[in-house]
Formats: sequence, C-alpha cells, structure tokens
Amino acid sequence: MLDNNKTNHPLRQHIEEIVPLTDKEFDFVLSHFETTKKRKHQYLVQEGEIVKKEYWITKGCVKSYFLNENGKEHILRFAMEHWWITDYESFVKQTPSKINIDCLEDCELLYITFENRDKLTSQMHKMERFWAKKSKFGRIALQQRILSLLKNSTKERYDLLLEQYPQLFQRVPKKLIASYLGVSRETLSRLDS
Amino acid sequence: MLDNNKTNHPLRQHIEEIVPLTDKEFDFVLSHFETTKKRKHQYLVQEGEIVKKEYWITKGCVKSYFLNENGKEHILRFAMEHWWITDYESFVKQTPSKINIDCLEDCELLYITFENRDKLTSQMHKMERFWAKKSKFGRIALQQRILSLLKNSTKERYDLLLEQYPQLFQRVPKKLIASYLGVSRETLSRLDS
Repeated sequence: MLDNNKTNHPLRQHIEEIVPLTDKEFDFVLSHFETTKKRKHQYLVQEGEIVKKEYWITKGCVKSYFLNENGKEHILRFAMEHWWITDYESFVKQTPSKINIDCLEDCELLYITFENRDKLTSQMHKMERFWAKKSKFGRIALQQRILSLLKNSTKERYDLLLEQYPQLFQRVPKKLIASYLGVSRETLSRLDS
Repeated sequence: MLDNNKTNHPLRQHIEEIVPLTDKEFDFVLSHFETTKKRKHQYLVQEGEIVKKEYWITKGCVKSYFLNENGKEHILRFAMEHWWITDYESFVKQTPSKINIDCLEDCELLYITFENRDKLTSQMHKMERFWAKKSKFGRIALQQRILSLLKNSTKERYDLLLEQYPQLFQRVPKKLIASYLGVSRETLSRLDS
C-alpha cells in the first residue's frame, strides 16, 4: 500500500530524482493521478484499443508484447516497481494500439489520463521537464535495443538484459526471457548455465 | 541559405507546428543556435566522441550508422531537411558515442549545444514542451522500428520505409537502403522491381 505521508511518497521521491517539488506542488501533481489494482494475467493495454492511461507501477511486474500473424508472442519490454509503462504510440497519437501489456504478478499502479497529463504538463513546467527527461531516457533505451538487435549476439543480449534488470531473472518465467531475446527456451538454457 | 525574415524562418515554422512563438521569443530561441556547413562525406558524430551538439538540417541528407566487429555498416536512420539528428544517448548522458553520423550530401545545419539546450528549456516552458513532444515522436518511431524488425517481412519493411521517406529513394544509394533494411543489394532489387 502507498505511504500516505506525502514527503515519503514513492512517486514524489521518483519525481524528485529529476525536479524538486514543494509539498503543495506534489499535492497538485498527485491530484492528477488515480490508483488501481490488477490481478496477475489482467491487462493494462489490449491491441486495438486507444490507450487513455499512462501507468506508474507501485507494486508488481508487467510485460508488453505483440502477437505475430501466427499468434507467436514477441516481448517488447518488461516493467516493474517505479517504472512508467503504456503504449506510447497509441497514448500520444490517440490511435489504436498494436501491442498488449499484461500483468505478470498482482499489481498496484498509479495512472494518469491523457487529458490530465496534458493539463499538468501545460500548467507546470517542472512536470514537463520531468517527463521530457523520462522520454529521452525511454528513447535511449529503445535505441540500445535496436543496436542490440542488429549488432549483438544472443549471449551479449542476454548479458545486457541481466545487467539492465537483474531482478527479472528471479521474477519472470524463463520462456518470457527467451521471447524477449528472440531465442528458443533451449538456447536460453545454454546461456543460463 | 536561410531566410533572414524571422517570420518565415524555417525553424520558426517548424517550432510553431507545436508551440506558437512571438517575434521576441523566436529571436531568443534562435540566439541559442549556431549555423554550420558540411561537405558530403564529412561527419556530424564519430564513434567514441562525447556528442556536444544536436543538429537541425536546413539542407541536405545524413545517415546514422554503426560498424559491427567486422566493419560492416548497419544503418540506424536517415535524416534530411527539417529533421533533428544527433546521437541522443551520447548527447543526453554525455557518454562516448557508439554510432556515426555522416553527410550523404553537402549539408547546411543549425545546431544547439548541450548547455544551450538545457538553458533554453529551463528558461522557456514552450521550448521544453516543443522538445518533449519531438522526443515522444522520436521514441514512437524507434518503437515502430523495433516492432518492424521483430515482426515484419523485408517486403513490409521496404514498404514502410517508402511510406516514411518517399524522397529517400531518389536521394540515397540503393546499397544504403539495403543496409537499413538489413538485406543484400540483390534482395533489394527484387523488392524494388
């Protein structure tokens, strides 16, 4: 459960890694968010829908993925505590989503709607700056993934994943890690040993 | 050459697609930029250097790419008139670049340094908002590229590239388009016919 003491609120600590906030400012920011809970296997985003919410995970772990024409699942990324996640293409452009985001564990989340995020960033330069910086880092992570897909061996991609998300290997079934790396479960076992 | 009439300045028109600016605001924005020219084959970014500048192309066309351990070139993206380009990982984190950006034609460019961009976005919410939005679109383009690399056939990736950059096919050697798609020149010829 979230700590109700505003100074220790995990979202406040998270935002203050980039921009400092007064108590009043944080109250204003938080008033734009809602909380929700999802059980394991429930979804945050489903292919075909127009995504209205960006989530910040307070507890749990999710996967984003798409299905190819044969129904095979390709993992795009994982996210866990204190990560932001949504389908940014659908959220920003308000077009139907091409991907899915499902809960791998029971999750507790904060979310902000498209309208509230736009209102908040228009009214508050600090939050525009915060998300601008987060978006830059998101963009860099995607560029690293592209470089890694084009350049690295499976072993190198495995090591990079282990470095980026060390906890993941305890929390996520091996077959999903294999899907993220684009290898078979058997190949993964060889890398893992 | 750039039009000196500020209202018609192409950078102003470009920024005003997202945020409106007064004459005074645009003068302030422009005072943070410098102009430069590069000849065909000169570089904007070289692997190993810490990137200090973000470029906005007023004339010309560039490629960003990396070399694998065998010296084989992999194209990450192209950019031409009115596109922003740099190595965002190196520019944002101020770490050595893993990629190269070279001019495919004689180029005229505006650039802003890391320090000036930070100063400008701190002082001017509108420009923070402008780049936040640009960064979101950059992130979406990268996600589309990842989906496309993982999901689409070469033919589908060729069609997507043709749709995204129709002028590119007139301006860029076919072997570079093949490199972007990750196929041989011969495979490209079959798609092209």
